[in-house]
Amino acid sequence: MNGRTSARVGMVGAGQLARMTQRAAIDLGVALTVLAERDDDPAVAAGAAVEHGAADDPDALARLADRVDVVTFDHELVDGPALARLAARGVAVRPSPSALAHAQDKLLAREAFARLGLPGPAHAVATDEAGVAALAAAHGWPLVAKARRGGYDGRGVVVVADADELAAVLARGGEWIVEQRVPLAVELAVVLARRPGGAMAVHPVVETVQRDGICHELVMPARVPAATAARAVAVATELATGIDAVGVCAVELFVTPTGDVLVNEIALRPHNSGHATIEGAVTSQFHNHLRAVLDWPLGDPSMRALVAATVNVLGADDGDVAARVPTALAVPGAHVHLYGKTSRPGRKLGHVTVLGDDADAALTAARRAARALTRPA
Amino acid sequence: MNGRTSARVGMVGAGQLARMTQRAAIDLGVALTVLAERDDDPAVAAGAAVEHGAADDPDALARLADRVDVVTFDHELVDGPALARLAARGVAVRPSPSALAHAQDKLLAREAFARLGLPGPAHAVATDEAGVAALAAAHGWPLVAKARRGGYDGRGVVVVADADELAAVLARGGEWIVEQRVPLAVELAVVLARRPGGAMAVHPVVETVQRDGICHELVMPARVPAATAARAVAVATELATGIDAVGVCAVELFVTPTGDVLVNEIALRPHNSGHATIEGAVTSQFHNHLRAVLDWPLGDPSMRALVAATVNVLGADDGDVAARVPTALAVPGAHVHLYGKTSRPGRKLGHVTVLGDDADAALTAARRAARALTRPA
Repeated sequence: MNGRTSARVGMVGAGQLARMTQRAAIDLGVALTVLAERDDDPAVAAGAAVEHGAADDPDALARLADRVDVVTFDHELVDGPALARLAARGVAVRPSPSALAHAQDKLLAREAFARLGLPGPAHAVATDEAGVAALAAAHGWPLVAKARRGGYDGRGVVVVADADELAAVLARGGEWIVEQRVPLAVELAVVLARRPGGAMAVHPVVETVQRDGICHELVMPARVPAATAARAVAVATELATGIDAVGVCAVELFVTPTGDVLVNEIALRPHNSGHATIEGAVTSQFHNHLRAVLDWPLGDPSMRALVAATVNVLGADDGDVAARVPTALAVPGAHVHLYGKTSRPGRKLGHVTVLGDDADAALTAARRAARALTRPA
Repeated sequence: MNGRTSARVGMVGAGQLARMTQRAAIDLGVALTVLAERDDDPAVAAGAAVEHGAADDPDALARLADRVDVVTFDHELVDGPALARLAARGVAVRPSPSALAHAQDKLLAREAFARLGLPGPAHAVATDEAGVAALAAAHGWPLVAKARRGGYDGRGVVVVADADELAAVLARGGEWIVEQRVPLAVELAVVLARRPGGAMAVHPVVETVQRDGICHELVMPARVPAATAARAVAVATELATGIDAVGVCAVELFVTPTGDVLVNEIALRPHNSGHATIEGAVTSQFHNHLRAVLDWPLGDPSMRALVAATVNVLGADDGDVAARVPTALAVPGAHVHLYGKTSRPGRKLGHVTVLGDDADAALTAARRAARALTRPA
């Protein structure tokens, strides 16, 4: 069209991450098309253009690719070989299928982290009896069994007390790895954006509070010693560079009581642990994800306030969350984000961020607002 | 739908103000439907739901009203009697047709400001020869002729050097008023949101730089003495209360070299002079507009930084603005907003906001980024 071309980004998946990417796309004049299965998916409800289809359908991926300049992701449950074929015929797939594989395959990820010299939990392939025995001898039971592929939000993770429990898990089928159970002082995440040429914008380290494998709360910056934060950033940037990540990636890390920093996993897309960047950072992870996959200059990832606290809104009932918004907005400083989802117990429906000078005060306010959204008034 | 109802807001018009309202609607889980004539209108391109039709078509307004909980506006060129009929049959029209009239009819506005005891330029009805003669005697020529209805961005405003020039303007047809030409030290705007019950959130006073009647630049907070800023806020809040405004309203004010503060005009909708609130304020004018028209608690309108400077991106050619975005984003701190419009000389295509500690530095950076969007690299 004369005088008007928008950069066209295609995103596989249409959940809340794509929804919040649509918000950034509006700012930047980017045309976002999502690959969606349902018209009430969060990003479709937010007005992103839609290609209908499933992320594991090679034809749907190809149709999406035909409409856009670059293909990126709101989740990693995508058909790897189909992506590789797209990339092979010249489609800009960012992150690349080989980088994305580190978020799809826990065994491949652990092996890559080790090859890069990055510290991670000791692990073994679950069917390798000698390896598991050595792991148990070194670290003791219980160990943690993790599905090699497809787990998220705590699904596909099982603490196993002994070899019999491990055998029961393996009997479910699928491939598993087994890891030492890391003693935890705190969990951290480093959210960064990386351009194809390697330039990076790294947000301050985030402290995450997980329950049952689901992220409940974030505090940015993390309340850890500066050396620990610096170590986390060093590990995350080495990892992102080492696997040639492009776009936003979120590196989740364990910190042990003795201060060791271990890589848990990496997501190659905007991530729940980066939600505090919407209000808390000069440039949000969603803006920088678009900028990175389009190979545009990245925005300043530093903070706009001393502290940002984010509390996820997890459904507690099947009540009308939207009707509770005014009560949540009555909490001073509460930035409410809803994902346009029907409430069900445990479902991520939204999040609330509060900025401030004090982490405890910001967390308290964000919890109050999040609670208002999940309970009848 | 069980467990899911979104608040439904209908906005008459689908320009950049509706586009930026869609961005806020995504955050709040609000379903925004715009009344639009074209599918490439900025808010439609941003994914707002659409009711097709014209703002001066009573049937189209009624169709929009049938789809939503509350009707509001992205501009004021709306059929007043049709709105009044909607309100009479119980549709929530916010602002009310009678409040909106102050943005539609300059004579009615001047009379209302005077009745409220608020200072404005001396004026007369253009066909009132004695009134015009008295105005000229008191203030001297030139005077300013303004179309009573329908003017915007400098259209419908003519400086007239004498009675003959005024007669030539009147010969064009339409109703006109005539005002003293106010000697200007600076122009200000006060952007505030007001709920139906009267609660208000008032942003810091903005300094606006107009050229040919079009807003070019904003500095928030305005670089004026505290007493002047306080006077501007007092006038704006009295005016909003006096006409029972609901939603965002922007009061534009003249400051004379002797420090007098005069009301120029009022817009009852999000306004160009409030664009710096997106990054510069804790709560943007777009979020607070939705919150106000839904009668939800308002958000904190105070600043997140010492200074916010915004420069409008006005088309200089018919070049490809989107292709220039990377150059603009290379300016440190530049928050680029594009409206998805084709470039034409003089057209408002977007804006750039830069936050900082120093107004001149922020303005310089915002101008650099805006210039990058309007000139070939």
